[in-house]
Amino acid sequence: MLMKASSQSLTEQLATRFAERIRNRLLAPGARLPSVRQCAEQHGVSPSTVVSAYDQLLAQGLVEARKNRGFFVREAGADAQEPVSGASGDDASKWSAAHWLVARRNPGPVNATALIRGMFHKISDKPQPGMGVFPADWLESTFMPAAVRKATSTRALHEFSLQYGEPLGDGSLRRALANKLAGLNVPASPEQIITSVGATHALDIVSRTLLRPGDPVMVEEPGWAVEFARLNALGMRLLPVPRRADGPDLDVMAQYCRLHQPKLYVSVSVFHNPTSYCLSPGSAHRILQLANQHDFHIVEDDTYSHIAPAHATRLCALDGLQRTIYVGGFAKILAPNWRIGFMAAPTQLVERLLDTKLLATLTTPALLERALAHCIEQGQLRRHSERIKTRLDAARSRSVKLALGAGCTFAAEPAGLFGWVETGVDTDQLAQRMLDEGYLLAPGALFHAERKPSTLMRINFATTQDAAFWKKYAEIVRRM
Amino acid sequence: MLMKASSQSLTEQLATRFAERIRNRLLAPGARLPSVRQCAEQHGVSPSTVVSAYDQLLAQGLVEARKNRGFFVREAGADAQEPVSGASGDDASKWSAAHWLVARRNPGPVNATALIRGMFHKISDKPQPGMGVFPADWLESTFMPAAVRKATSTRALHEFSLQYGEPLGDGSLRRALANKLAGLNVPASPEQIITSVGATHALDIVSRTLLRPGDPVMVEEPGWAVEFARLNALGMRLLPVPRRADGPDLDVMAQYCRLHQPKLYVSVSVFHNPTSYCLSPGSAHRILQLANQHDFHIVEDDTYSHIAPAHATRLCALDGLQRTIYVGGFAKILAPNWRIGFMAAPTQLVERLLDTKLLATLTTPALLERALAHCIEQGQLRRHSERIKTRLDAARSRSVKLALGAGCTFAAEPAGLFGWVETGVDTDQLAQRMLDEGYLLAPGALFHAERKPSTLMRINFATTQDAAFWKKYAEIVRRM
Repeated sequence: MLMKASSQSLTEQLATRFAERIRNRLLAPGARLPSVRQCAEQHGVSPSTVVSAYDQLLAQGLVEARKNRGFFVREAGADAQEPVSGASGDDASKWSAAHWLVARRNPGPVNATALIRGMFHKISDKPQPGMGVFPADWLESTFMPAAVRKATSTRALHEFSLQYGEPLGDGSLRRALANKLAGLNVPASPEQIITSVGATHALDIVSRTLLRPGDPVMVEEPGWAVEFARLNALGMRLLPVPRRADGPDLDVMAQYCRLHQPKLYVSVSVFHNPTSYCLSPGSAHRILQLANQHDFHIVEDDTYSHIAPAHATRLCALDGLQRTIYVGGFAKILAPNWRIGFMAAPTQLVERLLDTKLLATLTTPALLERALAHCIEQGQLRRHSERIKTRLDAARSRSVKLALGAGCTFAAEPAGLFGWVETGVDTDQLAQRMLDEGYLLAPGALFHAERKPSTLMRINFATTQDAAFWKKYAEIVRRM
Repeated sequence: MLMKASSQSLTEQLATRFAERIRNRLLAPGARLPSVRQCAEQHGVSPSTVVSAYDQLLAQGLVEARKNRGFFVREAGADAQEPVSGASGDDASKWSAAHWLVARRNPGPVNATALIRGMFHKISDKPQPGMGVFPADWLESTFMPAAVRKATSTRALHEFSLQYGEPLGDGSLRRALANKLAGLNVPASPEQIITSVGATHALDIVSRTLLRPGDPVMVEEPGWAVEFARLNALGMRLLPVPRRADGPDLDVMAQYCRLHQPKLYVSVSVFHNPTSYCLSPGSAHRILQLANQHDFHIVEDDTYSHIAPAHATRLCALDGLQRTIYVGGFAKILAPNWRIGFMAAPTQLVERLLDTKLLATLTTPALLERALAHCIEQGQLRRHSERIKTRLDAARSRSVKLALGAGCTFAAEPAGLFGWVETGVDTDQLAQRMLDEGYLLAPGALFHAERKPSTLMRINFATTQDAAFWKKYAEIVRRM
């Protein structure tokens, strides 16, 4: 809120607020600022105050005026002189999900990464509906510190620190993961498992190994924006396949196969982000048939497996890791900053994937891998996941009730961590308004390869149990 | 040694030995096996035993016979079915440096990475002359476990684990690094520093950010093979600049600039690997003039800074991080497996480099970064480095004396960690022979972009103080 009693004038306050958002990429390069009238209404100030504030932004080189079209955030070229002020703050930053809040129509690779940069900015102390992970306090445990202490006894620490370690990753973790995968009917020996710096790194290694710039890649739409951004940055050609309740649109997929000969299909089969859809066995079978027929690989990102039933359908289980690569991680369930992920791959791909890992980072820190192995072996991670699931189920009931009460409908049956919510208004605009109230939303455009504006948004069930949020939400939607 | 009393026949023992080396990439795809006569002599067996052993390898599909030319290791194509047996062993693996031991003439990207794979195989319990790092027992300390314990108190651990952390890297580490760089006259604010998964990852991030496939890149020759391999894998065009005692050959460099417009120059200015040469101020000035004139960036890999004098000439210091990027790491001096490296970059490049980091791994583990920050802040790392330097000086004197006694000469004035030694014989062949004795060497070909056979080899002064090694070396060189 702008404050009349502040030592700063209203103009300065308004200009400062926009400048911060632009620097922190909460307003992306190319985004249009609200019209003077809209902005004045929204902030309860006179149009002349807005004009003065916009003039200040213009003078600072942060925005540009386009004739008859209004004010736009300047494109941050390679020569931009702005330091990353927000991103380098010393406060523990908060992860959240959706962040460029007015989308460009034709995002290039550089701009596409803007949204990730926004992920790390702390907006307020409120629970953030757009967040992609569980709140930190949900993840607190006593077993994790105990496991770390075990791995950091002086002797163990020297063992894990003073040599480069195993290229594939810590042996005990790979054995624990092989057992875990066996429980999901994914047959992987420890020698088929390669650890990585989070699931993100595993997906990066797979892309770098299997693809060359210009290669066509099928992605799910809606889907996870970071994946789109990474593939864009690597120069790949994205083929978005509509994701339905039971799996990808198979007709579209078949057509892509005929026309473009895609090299890879990137899929979240279980608790798909953002819809929480789960793949049906029939779809899975048909996808694998297409993969065999048209000779493409599949990378299955099973990031949400920890909160999913073991019997959920996974492509890697049906296929037996023949042309599928399984990717998993522990950021969602245990420790986002440990950056431990892994891939389980067909035997004949392991060497090539390992080469890519070695050239990019050599090895990965064994100390945290060993601590994680301990948590898995002792069954602590499984019990922890069960507790989180129970807590999430309760949160989801409350959140759904509040969302319906606020006039939302669910575009997908509520399940997993995320709800895919129909708001009836443009969620890019809604997100900007809610930001003024200290809430970060994940607007639907974030999940489209081309950032198409959308009336949908993704909510995190763990962070939307707060009646105050939904009250504010309903109030603002009403005014839009 | 082959054993007559073994339960395996001599043929089986010989075949097994070659099979293991091929699987572990100590004999690279395309490498020629010794002639039957040579091999028989070397192992003290009859030619028919060698023929039978080679036949077994042929039957196993590991080698192929080329008419009138002998036996060659088969090219491992994308479809090879061999698992990475050695690389996935559970023994703590040992890092060492030189590993494909008979080189191909035209290494492609896949084959180029073979040598790194060899880095992690434990050859024997002997000190390894080809190793690229200090032996683990040199790195042991009490301050490191203490710093880790501090960073893993339950409260700190939760703080460092349950959120994604700062995109640029832990703030306290970046502040400590900024101070450290100030001591080297490299002016970098904490906001210009980005942490990475080891120096390797920093170099990878720089390449991915500044280069597009096909771009020409100047590298030093001799130079570090992993850098060649990474740039090859990224599809870059390598322009090798001969490295002299005072710096790169400036005429060659100027010619490359005129003919190819290189985008980047990758340099180890201080204690260059493998020669331990240090850049002269005059050369540094001239390089920066060329960079300005022809508009290329420079990435300066200062991996060996911990054992170098602070006043050594660094391009980043002269240039003030205008078109230079500084890369450092702690694998050499503190903890290879912590995988902590960093880059300090011109302000206008920070955002782009950070985007690449985020897309590849999101953040990096803050826990180990904070522990490292503590070691730096308390002056412990500096004192530890001083102790290592003193120990290395003593080791170098002994090693140089032994090397000269064994008939070697030094192609570069002995300094730093590595000696660049003239043996008078083909070091690819020498390395194969010494491998039979349990010693891994780093033959000169390893340090050439095209793997040209060489009579030079790199030795690690810390691991060549052993008279037994030099005795065996002299004996084998005499027989060659």
